Amino acid sequence: MGTSHLEREILEQPQVLQRLLENERLAVDEIAATIRRRAPGFVVLAARGTSDNAARYGQYLFGAANGLPVALATPSLFTLYRKPPRLQEALVMAISQSGQSPDILAVIEEGQRQGALTLAITNDAASPLARAAEHVIFLHAGQERSIAATKTYTASLLAVAMLSTALAEDKERFRDLEALPALMSEVVASAPQIIRAAEPYRDIEACVVISRGYNYATAFEIALKLKELAYILAEPYSSADFEHGPMALVERGFPVLAVVPDGCVAEELVDLLRRLRERGARLVVIADRDDALALAQTPLPLPAGVPEWLSPLLAVVPGQLFTLGLIEAKGLDPDRPRGLRKVTLTR
Amino acid sequence: MGTSHLEREILEQPQVLQRLLENERLAVDEIAATIRRRAPGFVVLAARGTSDNAARYGQYLFGAANGLPVALATPSLFTLYRKPPRLQEALVMAISQSGQSPDILAVIEEGQRQGALTLAITNDAASPLARAAEHVIFLHAGQERSIAATKTYTASLLAVAMLSTALAEDKERFRDLEALPALMSEVVASAPQIIRAAEPYRDIEACVVISRGYNYATAFEIALKLKELAYILAEPYSSADFEHGPMALVERGFPVLAVVPDGCVAEELVDLLRRLRERGARLVVIADRDDALALAQTPLPLPAGVPEWLSPLLAVVPGQLFTLGLIEAKGLDPDRPRGLRKVTLTR
Repeated sequence: MGTSHLEREILEQPQVLQRLLENERLAVDEIAATIRRRAPGFVVLAARGTSDNAARYGQYLFGAANGLPVALATPSLFTLYRKPPRLQEALVMAISQSGQSPDILAVIEEGQRQGALTLAITNDAASPLARAAEHVIFLHAGQERSIAATKTYTASLLAVAMLSTALAEDKERFRDLEALPALMSEVVASAPQIIRAAEPYRDIEACVVISRGYNYATAFEIALKLKELAYILAEPYSSADFEHGPMALVERGFPVLAVVPDGCVAEELVDLLRRLRERGARLVVIADRDDALALAQTPLPLPAGVPEWLSPLLAVVPGQLFTLGLIEAKGLDPDRPRGLRKVTLTR
Repeated sequence: MGTSHLEREILEQPQVLQRLLENERLAVDEIAATIRRRAPGFVVLAARGTSDNAARYGQYLFGAANGLPVALATPSLFTLYRKPPRLQEALVMAISQSGQSPDILAVIEEGQRQGALTLAITNDAASPLARAAEHVIFLHAGQERSIAATKTYTASLLAVAMLSTALAEDKERFRDLEALPALMSEVVASAPQIIRAAEPYRDIEACVVISRGYNYATAFEIALKLKELAYILAEPYSSADFEHGPMALVERGFPVLAVVPDGCVAEELVDLLRRLRERGARLVVIADRDDALALAQTPLPLPAGVPEWLSPLLAVVPGQLFTLGLIEAKGLDPDRPRGLRKVTLTR
């Protein structure tokens, strides 16, 4: 224990957030000024895998805080079909830690070709994506050696949050951002307990991961980590979609991981947890609310008082650590997941 | 056999498509003329469950055929957060067979409030959604008695395809639409064989459903049917996303259902099928290409010569029938799935 790249990078997240806040503030302010001047009517956001979950966070945050509708790009329209939509009035944005994926690059290049405003969020400032985009937010996450992305995910969320805050010119929100590294330190300090809490789940083959709103992204990202690292068939759901069908899957003992931050979606999620509990589901709950934690067989508490719009940066971390705990309990190698490469060159 | 609402409604799909083509052509032409006049820069599309998969088809078709970027709405921004994005320049569209879901209604109402062009696609012309929207495309599917949506799904796809064709004023494409009912009859004629082909899969607990592009929607919809009716943990994937993580899940004997229509994404999908076969996956393949079908343990052939953009209307049907076959093999009641209601009133 304590020696995998994965674990080191999970624990490194407070420093990564601090570095990003310190080093990109000015660049982000300038980009925000350009965006305000150009006033795009909507955002087209391209990303894959973990970065696509950061894009999902952007979909909620740019919508709620900046009034911008966000279309998640369908890269195959740009590559395989060669029928890209009209982008002139859009802010075309891409998130990619490596900046290498050809299909994500194709979306930015098409945005440039059509004269749209383009922005890349990446951890490699020399990557093809960074070179193709008009503007770049650099993640300052340091090299990510683990095949599974953790620190570049929370850094991407912070980059999105910084841009949204700068667009809104909201000083109070910027103070909330500055509080994040210390809060992240609190979360990673409970790593040993969370890793141990995963042990009883070592034999599960499947689960669902539920949240809603800002943390819909968190549900997707935790499910992806469980799949790619612990080989658990974990499916993410919005609590609303869950009632439109998959509720039928829950039998006695079926594991459900729920992310329940205090805020606008909490009541609905707690109500769903009660019904899942009645059906005999086995609940792992990441939350800062006592009512949600009290319903869990395995409560994973978050620091209190975090505004809901920033909760995804912290709420994913117990999910990363829970996955690490499962890997260790199963005797798997966290740095050598089967069948995966760090950079995936999809078209 | 032959007496469930579900089976009757699957087999009824050729007639439903024919009715919709005959009865809504004029209305759709008028709506298309209004949309061309108002020239929205993008589409915001709200839907849940099965209808959300029809929206996913719209995301590709409106993008490729009409140059319109499509943002799938995040209804919680309209309801729980009460922070809707700016919609003035959007075409705000909702798909809901019942027209009852409060969160989908909220998106259309907000569009109206902001002065956007609004359109509802629904099977209930007297529903709250139909009354709230400026324009309505009525599905003419007849009452859907089965809790799981089948005929309203393919009807919703056809409504989207008719609107896209009318927007593009493309007469050749309209002839392709008119060929659909007869092609659908061919597919449902093979119902007994497809139902029997599912029998050997009666004990599977999990699978993935893979496609890309236009049929990304088909993968989602077949996975939803497998979950809600056959209680199989079925997860949908784009072939591109599948390589960004979940590839790790595939072990010897793991079932993979793939939808491989001839067209721009076929080569990539066949390549993935070859690699899955090497890893020992158990392949069920819905396709009109011999190379794809030859890789399958269970090939489910589609009629040849269907243009890729219309293939989702036909390719979902073997998935519906395969699900029905699993239900019968498992001795489940197709009309009484556990834990589900026909109309789900999420906020």
